[in-house]
Amino acid sequence: MIKKEFGMTDFDFKNKQNEGRALVSINRPACLSSTQVEAISQIAGPGNTSTNEYERTRYAYGKTSEEMMELGRQVVREIADLVVHPRNKQDVQNIVMYCNREKIPIYVFSGGSSVTLGLRPVKAGITLVLSTHMKKLLELNEKNQTARVQPGMFGPAYETALNHAPERFMARRRYTCGHFPQSFEHSTVGGWVVTLGSGQASSYYGDAADIVLSQEYVTPAGTFKTLDFTSTATGPKIHDIMKGSEGAFGILVELTMKIFRHMPANRRYFSFIFPSWKAAVSASREIAQGEFGHPAVYRISDSEETDRGLKLYDLPKPVDIILQKLGYMPMQRCLCLGNIEGDRDYTRLVKRKIKKTCKQHGAIYSGEYGAKKWAKTRYTEPCMREDLHDYGIIIDTLETSVTWSNLHRLHQNVRAFIKQRPKTISMTHASHIYPQGTNLYFIFIGRFDDIDDYRRFHRAIIGCIEKNGGSLSHHHGIGRLMAPWMEKHLGKVQMDVLRALKKHFDPNTIMNPGGQLGLDLEHQDTH
Amino acid sequence: MIKKEFGMTDFDFKNKQNEGRALVSINRPACLSSTQVEAISQIAGPGNTSTNEYERTRYAYGKTSEEMMELGRQVVREIADLVVHPRNKQDVQNIVMYCNREKIPIYVFSGGSSVTLGLRPVKAGITLVLSTHMKKLLELNEKNQTARVQPGMFGPAYETALNHAPERFMARRRYTCGHFPQSFEHSTVGGWVVTLGSGQASSYYGDAADIVLSQEYVTPAGTFKTLDFTSTATGPKIHDIMKGSEGAFGILVELTMKIFRHMPANRRYFSFIFPSWKAAVSASREIAQGEFGHPAVYRISDSEETDRGLKLYDLPKPVDIILQKLGYMPMQRCLCLGNIEGDRDYTRLVKRKIKKTCKQHGAIYSGEYGAKKWAKTRYTEPCMREDLHDYGIIIDTLETSVTWSNLHRLHQNVRAFIKQRPKTISMTHASHIYPQGTNLYFIFIGRFDDIDDYRRFHRAIIGCIEKNGGSLSHHHGIGRLMAPWMEKHLGKVQMDVLRALKKHFDPNTIMNPGGQLGLDLEHQDTH
Repeated sequence: MIKKEFGMTDFDFKNKQNEGRALVSINRPACLSSTQVEAISQIAGPGNTSTNEYERTRYAYGKTSEEMMELGRQVVREIADLVVHPRNKQDVQNIVMYCNREKIPIYVFSGGSSVTLGLRPVKAGITLVLSTHMKKLLELNEKNQTARVQPGMFGPAYETALNHAPERFMARRRYTCGHFPQSFEHSTVGGWVVTLGSGQASSYYGDAADIVLSQEYVTPAGTFKTLDFTSTATGPKIHDIMKGSEGAFGILVELTMKIFRHMPANRRYFSFIFPSWKAAVSASREIAQGEFGHPAVYRISDSEETDRGLKLYDLPKPVDIILQKLGYMPMQRCLCLGNIEGDRDYTRLVKRKIKKTCKQHGAIYSGEYGAKKWAKTRYTEPCMREDLHDYGIIIDTLETSVTWSNLHRLHQNVRAFIKQRPKTISMTHASHIYPQGTNLYFIFIGRFDDIDDYRRFHRAIIGCIEKNGGSLSHHHGIGRLMAPWMEKHLGKVQMDVLRALKKHFDPNTIMNPGGQLGLDLEHQDTH
Repeated sequence: MIKKEFGMTDFDFKNKQNEGRALVSINRPACLSSTQVEAISQIAGPGNTSTNEYERTRYAYGKTSEEMMELGRQVVREIADLVVHPRNKQDVQNIVMYCNREKIPIYVFSGGSSVTLGLRPVKAGITLVLSTHMKKLLELNEKNQTARVQPGMFGPAYETALNHAPERFMARRRYTCGHFPQSFEHSTVGGWVVTLGSGQASSYYGDAADIVLSQEYVTPAGTFKTLDFTSTATGPKIHDIMKGSEGAFGILVELTMKIFRHMPANRRYFSFIFPSWKAAVSASREIAQGEFGHPAVYRISDSEETDRGLKLYDLPKPVDIILQKLGYMPMQRCLCLGNIEGDRDYTRLVKRKIKKTCKQHGAIYSGEYGAKKWAKTRYTEPCMREDLHDYGIIIDTLETSVTWSNLHRLHQNVRAFIKQRPKTISMTHASHIYPQGTNLYFIFIGRFDDIDDYRRFHRAIIGCIEKNGGSLSHHHGIGRLMAPWMEKHLGKVQMDVLRALKKHFDPNTIMNPGGQLGLDLEHQDTH
């Protein structure tokens, strides 16, 4: 497909390019004084700090396409002066106090899956790696159905521990975390919360912001733990204020997460083919608003994504002919797939209701296979991005939140913008449905030789989303990538509130400084 | 029952006392200059301001027992200098700008149902009455299932308009607001949100904080409207920060609320009698965590509330004998009642599941009658409080949020504290269930002649709740009543965050000043 689309031949796939395998001389000495390095090393304990350039580079990068492109071309951006692996929250507190006194910038690396340049140490200073030591499940409370966990625990380790609660915690039941972002294997519990992530089953379990019950933070303005109440009327909630703070206010050192009963035997899969995107959207809205319960995973693909998906899934020719005879035409038909979790009778009811609703909107039920296949490859498929990069093909994504009433305008205009570029694939899906709206996930694939060329195109899509009434992000966060649009998006009065909070928590601007969330953009280029 | 409990006779109910019907000379001249009164009157337009002492008193009072007791004894506390009825948000903006310049305190009165002294104008200044003009449903968006509404609209008017959406807005469906606090008839949409209220059907529809989609505020630091997205990852949400701000940051002038399909025909009622409070709590937790959907109204009463309730509901003697034979003993058995809303098949499923769960925990199903009767009188029963007050009997309530694992400790200790006082009725129920916890609603009834005696007892119960791990409030808010406990409850570091926000939004301390939320307590007695 790629060959055909981009007019490439086997020859083009013979030699990889820009793999970034050459030895790079970074030669960037640490700016911290030896006294400072020594003091921080004292706090963190033996073997938990490093000034090694490879380490400093490794923990300075997230997962954006432009970072991959740059590294492939031996371009190394800002790195921290010192990498620190704190052992526990007391270490973090001591380090923050020391750095605040010495005005040393602090960055945080946990899973390192940021696609928003959220962890780039643009002011040097130190990077705290939370996923080295601070990755334990500390306590399981079955009565409250909560887990107390450290921020650096990776998704699979966390989920495995919950699934094995009877063996590991002598619990009466098995549990699930309910949060399965595409980055699941490469992201951590703390990262989910501070960036406001959403898992693929969020339509049932809620977004990370809904799943976290309380948080403990270390900030230059003090350390605190929010209370464990599910619902209170005790004024504006600091718990809410910290969600999405992306390291700019302080460091999340412990969380209490809601957990859910693990009942995989009750899971029911479904897939449908709709005659059109409009029909798929209408059915999805009805499902979100129908008040009969909610699916866990629920996704609809637009016509181009459907077409390419059916090709990748090897839709048998005879089936395709029948589909077309029934009116499900290529580049019009849309795929819907998902699953339902919860109590056995509940999943039966919700599946029945979804089937009925989809059929009322002209869909044909296409079995469980597609959804099961999707579930199997959902974490590995994105890795294709790395492989194709080496042949000059860039796959990238941008995502947004949108109200139902603005969905078609936004989809049409952003898609049209992407398609303006010659030989560019544009695929879109909605993967998180709410009664009041959904998200849109835009994927574009094209050949990009020049980083600036790619960057201009990528940034123009963001501008196009913003202009057409989409949010700057549904679940990737802001980081430094979206920062320049923040003030326009929220308005100055609201940005001033965030800046006031920044000033309160971090008067010396040491917490993830240099443009994060657009809070200290004016200083970005003065370093 | 009251007579028996408090050793009273018919004679005691012959003459009312402390009705507060005598003419009071308040004689409190306005402190605003005539220029200021004139300027504000100019902004608000003819007929929309008043310096009349009756008006100023009327809008200076909420609904706490101590306010009722004081007024009954001709004690009049602080009143505003000027009552203003703004016509629209532009009026509010002009008034806030003017008052900020002149440093005139601004209080807000909407429904006036505060039971936390939340609207008491302790620094005089002006009171804005939002429920006079700003009470319209501005727009219904069926695609997004949202309603744009002004803050001063009362519950019944709002709900009626939504129920009649086809007639009033040419809508395709009827809708419900999903929010039915006991104060429904006396509270407004804006008040629900700024105090973090919860409706009686919150276990299904969510609390006010969940139901509001976006808000527009006028503050001394500027006017802004939060965006209408259901879920975004664009940093800490100003929308969340404003929820529960109780007039201390700014004035809520418009809201977009989520609305729900109005399907009263699908509603199913239920009631059960459990052998014990422990069994009722365990079943409730299982229902909240069972993942088969959620009831709308769901309440369990402790043994004393159950006993008194069954007496009031006139439980027939033969039924009582059977119940006791079956092991449901007086002062042990506990009543559970509620209803389920949503799709017809969904309500059937959830009712079946609730029945099964309750029976597994030893309950006997007692039909729909109790729940229907409760629903009929739920808004009028509290009025008994006013009648009994005139005979020296005070009914009052305090409510809290609690985790499942701390529920019994909190209930036992607070109940024991209340029962220490001779001849005092103590009734408790849980009326909002979540997977991680519930609320507890403590009702006490006693004879109180002296206001200070009442106040000491009331405040001691708050202290007892706080000490035993309950939140300061589940849905009444903080106001000035709970303010003295705020710093202890949240800790200084978190209170400092709220104070930083206060300072940002309201640098001249004109927004609901004098202790609200505990933010400017140090100034409380200096006026």
